[in-house]
Amino acid sequence: MQVHNFNAGPSMLPNEVLYKASKALIDFDGLGMSILEISHRSEAFLQVMAEARQLVRELLQLDEDFEVLFLHGGASTQFMQVPYNLLDAGETAGYLDTGVWANRALKEARLFGNVEVVASSADRNYCYIPKSFTVPKHLKYLHITTNNTIYGTQWHQIPEVEVPLVADMSSDIFSRRLDFNKFALIYAGAQKNMGPAGVTLVVVRKSILGKVSRLIPTMLDYRVHIQHESIYNTPPVFAVYISMLTLRWLKEQGGVDAIEKRNEAKAALLYREIDENPLFRGTADPADRSRMNVCFVMNDPSLEKEFLEFCKKEDIVGIKGHRLVGGFRASIYNAMPIESVEYLVESMRYFARTHG
Amino acid sequence: MQVHNFNAGPSMLPNEVLYKASKALIDFDGLGMSILEISHRSEAFLQVMAEARQLVRELLQLDEDFEVLFLHGGASTQFMQVPYNLLDAGETAGYLDTGVWANRALKEARLFGNVEVVASSADRNYCYIPKSFTVPKHLKYLHITTNNTIYGTQWHQIPEVEVPLVADMSSDIFSRRLDFNKFALIYAGAQKNMGPAGVTLVVVRKSILGKVSRLIPTMLDYRVHIQHESIYNTPPVFAVYISMLTLRWLKEQGGVDAIEKRNEAKAALLYREIDENPLFRGTADPADRSRMNVCFVMNDPSLEKEFLEFCKKEDIVGIKGHRLVGGFRASIYNAMPIESVEYLVESMRYFARTHG
Ligand SMILES: Cc1ncc(COP(=O)(O)O)c(C=O)c1O
Ligand SMILES: Cc1ncc(COP(=O)(O)O)c(C=O)c1O
Ligand SMILES: [Mg+2]
Ligand SMILES: [Mg+2]
Ligand SMILES: [Mg+2]
Ligand SMILES: [Mg+2]
Repeated sequence: MQVHNFNAGPSMLPNEVLYKASKALIDFDGLGMSILEISHRSEAFLQVMAEARQLVRELLQLDEDFEVLFLHGGASTQFMQVPYNLLDAGETAGYLDTGVWANRALKEARLFGNVEVVASSADRNYCYIPKSFTVPKHLKYLHITTNNTIYGTQWHQIPEVEVPLVADMSSDIFSRRLDFNKFALIYAGAQKNMGPAGVTLVVVRKSILGKVSRLIPTMLDYRVHIQHESIYNTPPVFAVYISMLTLRWLKEQGGVDAIEKRNEAKAALLYREIDENPLFRGTADPADRSRMNVCFVMNDPSLEKEFLEFCKKEDIVGIKGHRLVGGFRASIYNAMPIESVEYLVESMRYFARTHG
Repeated sequence: MQVHNFNAGPSMLPNEVLYKASKALIDFDGLGMSILEISHRSEAFLQVMAEARQLVRELLQLDEDFEVLFLHGGASTQFMQVPYNLLDAGETAGYLDTGVWANRALKEARLFGNVEVVASSADRNYCYIPKSFTVPKHLKYLHITTNNTIYGTQWHQIPEVEVPLVADMSSDIFSRRLDFNKFALIYAGAQKNMGPAGVTLVVVRKSILGKVSRLIPTMLDYRVHIQHESIYNTPPVFAVYISMLTLRWLKEQGGVDAIEKRNEAKAALLYREIDENPLFRGTADPADRSRMNVCFVMNDPSLEKEFLEFCKKEDIVGIKGHRLVGGFRASIYNAMPIESVEYLVESMRYFARTHG
């Protein structure tokens, strides 16, 4: 990375991962072949897959009932794969509607069974996390999007529920310590916090599977992938490899607890500047602010174009806000060093001084 | 590549593709970011996707009604995605059962409608291509596996049919000139002839879509991916990029017609040696031999282990046959230079001289 890359996903990766991967593209492990040229059934790749799965288990401190899968398809595939495997026709799943992605997930579930929107923050453009709601006991599962990438909100308190909890953690997986064993199923597209685009992590409690009556196509059946240790068909070899390297890097950084402290510091620094700087203000309710995606606008919207151009000149990349929120979004996932956040803060200050 | 890599898939790629990709992993197009770190909505990646799609169109000489998609999931996902989109409940699709992959495809189709096995070569362990069969006119489509990777057979004559023809070309796409406009849908996992694992090419005639009554999950609906120009969700960016580079390379080689000549020469050389060498014999019926996967055994099976070890010592990789056929399989896809085939032939001769 030679720029300050605040892309929301795909996002920046640790330099050491990229350097290692760049070499593996020419010669993997001294085999005289590229990582792209080896068989997915070779000992070399079996080891990559096994290490990746083991690292997930270790970093999330998962109990024995869980299986770790690296699947094709992106998080959007999970929007339908989850209900395909868990929600029978006639049954009801609950969804917490906290943004675009949560909404897409619940729409897919409607193809398979009934959906109850347990709570929604659509009334104020998803700028907050719903606080008081009751979760009906008859739900087959409750689906939560732990971090809302577009709106910059995050569940800092995971609801305590009696029904199985399914979580889309695409934009905050591995960023903070949670009791991951409280979930029944967790999924995450790799391309934000743990790898490149092209592979999706699924962590699933075996005991919740096999309870729907519909026939599940082989490639969509979690049990098939569990049985084949995530190599039922040719997996996305390179994306799994990069994820493994990124998880290794994360472990070397001290794991989830250590990275959480760094993520807290990065977010605190940036939000403090947004609050103190007279030109900017945050868009999410302060209590629900995401530590991953920091969304902000300018008090004088006519300055936004100029600030964006200024950022571009300063090698600050990917800072434009999603069109549904406007303004700016700085995504500061695990791989983002605090130095880049400091650089952004300095740039905001400089801009304020020169445009005060 | 520093070895002679006969892997069946993932398989060898052109060195120049790997060198270019290795650099793009550190800095893509002078952006100061890795190809893994750019947004899939960035101009840079939109261009990659557009060029990849255009190269497919050009190399296959597709007419206007076709759409070119790069999808998640592997060819196995297409086994179910094809009938999901094309076969209504109660309708019947025909399948040509010419090997393990054809068989898996037809089994998935049974989840969606009726399947008629129009012809099968299961009776002789799939060592040939069925010759005389009639294709009922009521079929919704006929599914063919143009090259049977495991058994080393290939359809040299594509059947002339009056129903829409759907083809799994995973192991011979871009290897020979066909009238691709005769097909209704073509799919191919990229990892043999056109790229790395983790992306699947789908070429589909728009006019065959939208004719089933079932609801199709968004990620499985070809029409959604067409509408979003193959970027509905985050695509497997790197796998698309490598495919684009490989297709560019193919075009530089002279395109499909030029590569076909080279593939013919490579296959002829190897089959001649198998036939002439007293130690070896081919497993597929000569008329149906694949130009991509050359399967052979030894007349004295007790020598096979030694030949395999000899190959290993000689840096010949990936030559072990699939357990369903035994013996050896040399996969000689587009990227394989004739020099490696010559090297294999020399090694077989040397082995025969020393074990005659
Ligand atoms: C929280 C969340 N869920 C799901 C998705 C969709 O992911 P994909 O593009 O991998 O399908 C995204 C993409 O940004 C996301 O942020
Ligand atoms: C002809 C054919 N079809 C389908 C497949 C399955 O492909 P994937 O592993 O990408 O699902 C293969 C894999 O070797 C194949 O050779
Ligand atoms: Mg969102
Ligand atoms: Mg302020
Ligand atoms: Mg086969
Ligand atoms: Mg012979």
